[in-house]
Amino acid sequence: MKKQDLINLTKKTHKASRTLSNFSSDDKNKLLKLIHVNIYKNRNNILKNNKIDIRNSKDMNKDFAFIDRLTLTEHKIELMLNGIENIISLNDPVGKIIEDKILDNEMNLKKITVPLGVIGVIYESRPDITTDISSLCIKSGNAVILKGGKESINTNLCLTSIIKQSLKEFGTDDNFVNLIESTDRKITKEFLQLNEYIDLMIPRGGKSLVKMVEKEAKMPSITGGIGVTHIYIDPSADIYKAIPVVLNSKVSKPSVCNALDTLLIHSKILPTFLPLMIKSLSESNVEIRCDTKSYNEIKKYNYNNVLKSSKSDWGKEFLDLIISIKCVYSIEEAISHIYDYGSGHTDGIIAESKNSIKTFVNNIDSAAIMVNASTQFNDGGEFGLGAEVAISTNKYGARGPMGLENLCSYKWILTGKGNIRIR
Amino acid sequence: MKKQDLINLTKKTHKASRTLSNFSSDDKNKLLKLIHVNIYKNRNNILKNNKIDIRNSKDMNKDFAFIDRLTLTEHKIELMLNGIENIISLNDPVGKIIEDKILDNEMNLKKITVPLGVIGVIYESRPDITTDISSLCIKSGNAVILKGGKESINTNLCLTSIIKQSLKEFGTDDNFVNLIESTDRKITKEFLQLNEYIDLMIPRGGKSLVKMVEKEAKMPSITGGIGVTHIYIDPSADIYKAIPVVLNSKVSKPSVCNALDTLLIHSKILPTFLPLMIKSLSESNVEIRCDTKSYNEIKKYNYNNVLKSSKSDWGKEFLDLIISIKCVYSIEEAISHIYDYGSGHTDGIIAESKNSIKTFVNNIDSAAIMVNASTQFNDGGEFGLGAEVAISTNKYGARGPMGLENLCSYKWILTGKGNIRIR
Repeated sequence: MKKQDLINLTKKTHKASRTLSNFSSDDKNKLLKLIHVNIYKNRNNILKNNKIDIRNSKDMNKDFAFIDRLTLTEHKIELMLNGIENIISLNDPVGKIIEDKILDNEMNLKKITVPLGVIGVIYESRPDITTDISSLCIKSGNAVILKGGKESINTNLCLTSIIKQSLKEFGTDDNFVNLIESTDRKITKEFLQLNEYIDLMIPRGGKSLVKMVEKEAKMPSITGGIGVTHIYIDPSADIYKAIPVVLNSKVSKPSVCNALDTLLIHSKILPTFLPLMIKSLSESNVEIRCDTKSYNEIKKYNYNNVLKSSKSDWGKEFLDLIISIKCVYSIEEAISHIYDYGSGHTDGIIAESKNSIKTFVNNIDSAAIMVNASTQFNDGGEFGLGAEVAISTNKYGARGPMGLENLCSYKWILTGKGNIRIR
Repeated sequence: MKKQDLINLTKKTHKASRTLSNFSSDDKNKLLKLIHVNIYKNRNNILKNNKIDIRNSKDMNKDFAFIDRLTLTEHKIELMLNGIENIISLNDPVGKIIEDKILDNEMNLKKITVPLGVIGVIYESRPDITTDISSLCIKSGNAVILKGGKESINTNLCLTSIIKQSLKEFGTDDNFVNLIESTDRKITKEFLQLNEYIDLMIPRGGKSLVKMVEKEAKMPSITGGIGVTHIYIDPSADIYKAIPVVLNSKVSKPSVCNALDTLLIHSKILPTFLPLMIKSLSESNVEIRCDTKSYNEIKKYNYNNVLKSSKSDWGKEFLDLIISIKCVYSIEEAISHIYDYGSGHTDGIIAESKNSIKTFVNNIDSAAIMVNASTQFNDGGEFGLGAEVAISTNKYGARGPMGLENLCSYKWILTGKGNIRIR
């Protein structure tokens, strides 16, 4: 693909976004239902194309986790279809009146949500993102340009051709959804320059992809999915709440961004809390990396999986069954540690003291703060957003779990009766 | 100033932002009152420094408009002080609960506004921006790094030293407000790279500054202040509303971004409307650049200031007593023209037909759409925001007039009773 072809594709998508932005809720839902039907009808073809991608990836010696994310099954297609059904059931985020007021001389001012326009999405091996993000974009009235990983190109081509065929069947512009067919990395960099036609760029994938987009994108982009997650155990903590919460935060899904990485324990509660905590973590096969103070506290138990921590264990996102533990001597020290090493994604406190909770909540500047609750709850579904576009750690624009409303902008409409400004 | 000095200054500001983010409304207002008192006390010193800047600018042969923007007077200082008083009177935008809901198992989820952190501001000759933006930032709990124009450096140094002295007098960190004293342009480019410490960059000035920041800034930035403004006259328009609205949009403040540039007139109303409109504009000394159709309609009147338009008159922000006029044959043609030539800032319609208004409002994607009202109303003050930070034409993040709330982010706080995630 040449640069000019990419620009032409982007311009076509931009033009199509004007049509889509005016679609009624009813039409958008009908369109999504048609896509749902056609994906179901073509499921065997999807699986056939996916098999080609899997075989190619195996030939490239991709690891198990990679192949796992790439692989579609009858069940995964069912989940894909459930996802579309769920998006159909959500409220339309477009046309919501955010403000409605009367100004001087009876002028009416409204602030109304509108689609952003064109969304760019760059992702890696997971082909279910293709249908998920396309449906989220259609529902929010946004046209979308997809750039999937080269390893899933056959699956993505098949999925987008089904979507585009559905758009044609519906009698509308099939440029609402476009896939960049090139797997050239240079094209990705050029894609990130097209701020004139793309309103928001969303990377869905690992740290290196997210960082690359943050660095290169000329348009607004979402930084997300990188979570160095802390829990602080206050002296006032109820140990019988603390242990299951820490355990769940670490072990329920260790490979996700909101999984716990570092546990900060106040010295006053260390002797009573730590042995019980280590026992639970150890039984769940977690590798535990302790600072000197906490190591000394539990070395007598001779656990195999308890190690001494090194400097690199602070501020590290493990994405695995590994945890680092540090003893702190005040809540302020815990806050400073999180300030120095955190990523502003998800951090928690276990405490009964209202004062400690207040101090922590006011001083921690993270997208989500968990008080006596598992860090794994930081999720669009759990937060009641209906669907999740991404979890953002940006401060400007959307922060934390992003739902459909975060794919919208707004416009102001002032209605007068021939009013002129005199001041 | 070396790059490392700039980084150190930015880090100090970033650190200070943590303290300021927790200031109570009361403390922020007391601090602003102290700054108010000290600016009043030191007004003669401010004027003295301003005179140096004026003299230097005259030596550099700066034009009248430039010197006028740079010049402070007793009256302008009074306006500056009124501005601070106004900001004191506004509601604190921090700590506002945007959402508060009960999730499964009685968990409570809150979404609360917080300051963005550190705001960067790059501006040109107007020194009143120094106090205005510093006050807006303090009120919204944000630390700020200012980079003013080199021509106003003495005035800005004097103003920021008064602010910093007030911060010390208040007994707090004087890094809440910092001025980059260097007037080196290379430092500006380096300033725009510091996305690690600066959460939002606001350019306040002309098109070239705004475009440079849009191109170079690594952090989110505001694109604003560039308005190619259109008004479309529908066949259903009430001519006696249309004429004063167009006139006011063009002539009341021709040098601002929401001033009218291009008038699009439906062919059906052209013969009755145009002669009256041209008479009014002509009497106000507006230069009128007509397309062939509208030119032919009024050439018989022999106005001196009516010219034939050229291609470059479409999509042009005149910032002067100049207007371009085009006859269109349908509302769709008007919408297409605005899509092709507009800047998404402010566009208006004059119409009585509800259908025409609906078509226009739904299809025009501008930050503000004016229905039977002057385009000059697109302004934070007029829109009831209390104060205006900028007028944004971005779609992601703030759009249109930005008030204090647009200097805030939010965080999510989930409070449980030891809850763990099981799905």
